[in-house]
Amino acid sequence: MKNNESEFFTMKGYVEHTCGLTASMEDYLEMIFRMSQSGGIIRINELASSLHVRPPSAYKMAYLLKNDGFIQFQKYGYITLTDKGKSTGEYLLYRHRTIHSFLCLLNNSDDELEQTEKIEHYIDARTVHNLAVLTEKLIMKE
Amino acid sequence: MKNNESEFFTMKGYVEHTCGLTASMEDYLEMIFRMSQSGGIIRINELASSLHVRPPSAYKMAYLLKNDGFIQFQKYGYITLTDKGKSTGEYLLYRHRTIHSFLCLLNNSDDELEQTEKIEHYIDARTVHNLAVLTEKLIMKE
Repeated sequence: MKNNESEFFTMKGYVEHTCGLTASMEDYLEMIFRMSQSGGIIRINELASSLHVRPPSAYKMAYLLKNDGFIQFQKYGYITLTDKGKSTGEYLLYRHRTIHSFLCLLNNSDDELEQTEKIEHYIDARTVHNLAVLTEKLIMKE
Repeated sequence: MKNNESEFFTMKGYVEHTCGLTASMEDYLEMIFRMSQSGGIIRINELASSLHVRPPSAYKMAYLLKNDGFIQFQKYGYITLTDKGKSTGEYLLYRHRTIHSFLCLLNNSDDELEQTEKIEHYIDARTVHNLAVLTEKLIMKE
């Protein structure tokens, strides 16, 4: 056994120590950013429907994102992104697409959405960057 | 947006549909297999201490693994693996080492334990196999 394998914690132990956005908040913010890119007005009902959750759940999560300064509620219940929300949402979408592209290339497949959604929350920025570089190199060699 | 990105679920939605072992059960079984490899007798207290959890938590989880046929309780509270427990534990350790080796190579680092522990539960067997092949290829080219 290597030295660096000598300290183990359970999954729960790690997640409890993760700072900032929860996995769910990341899912919501990534989706709000996607919806904002297509230019339409974002309402709680449409957000809920896009994520296959009930409107009250979407409202609860949107409220948390508002409290943390990622989104704002406008008149008639529309949602808009703050600058912080935009840059974080953009990163989350980049992280999602980078991991998805790598897994598709690795597995010679065109749908790795389930694994991507599950792991993306735990992949750090340095790994995302290196995955993007590796994927590009591998594509160039094909 | 690609077609295969059109159906989204939240992290929780996916995890609820995952069958078989939970992430925690996998952590325990992987650790029991590690301990069994070093040849010593496995007791609940040592298992708990290896995973940085309290003995009652370890006992509860060991009980679930016993009910699912992965381990047996012997006299004096010792734990042994069944054949099913051995083969599953061996796979879990292989999956762990494969992901860890790939991430270390990718990030030019010798410790990627935290990310490995977080994502390993969600990486399927086909991806583990392809990561092992890719890591070997990349090492050969270095």
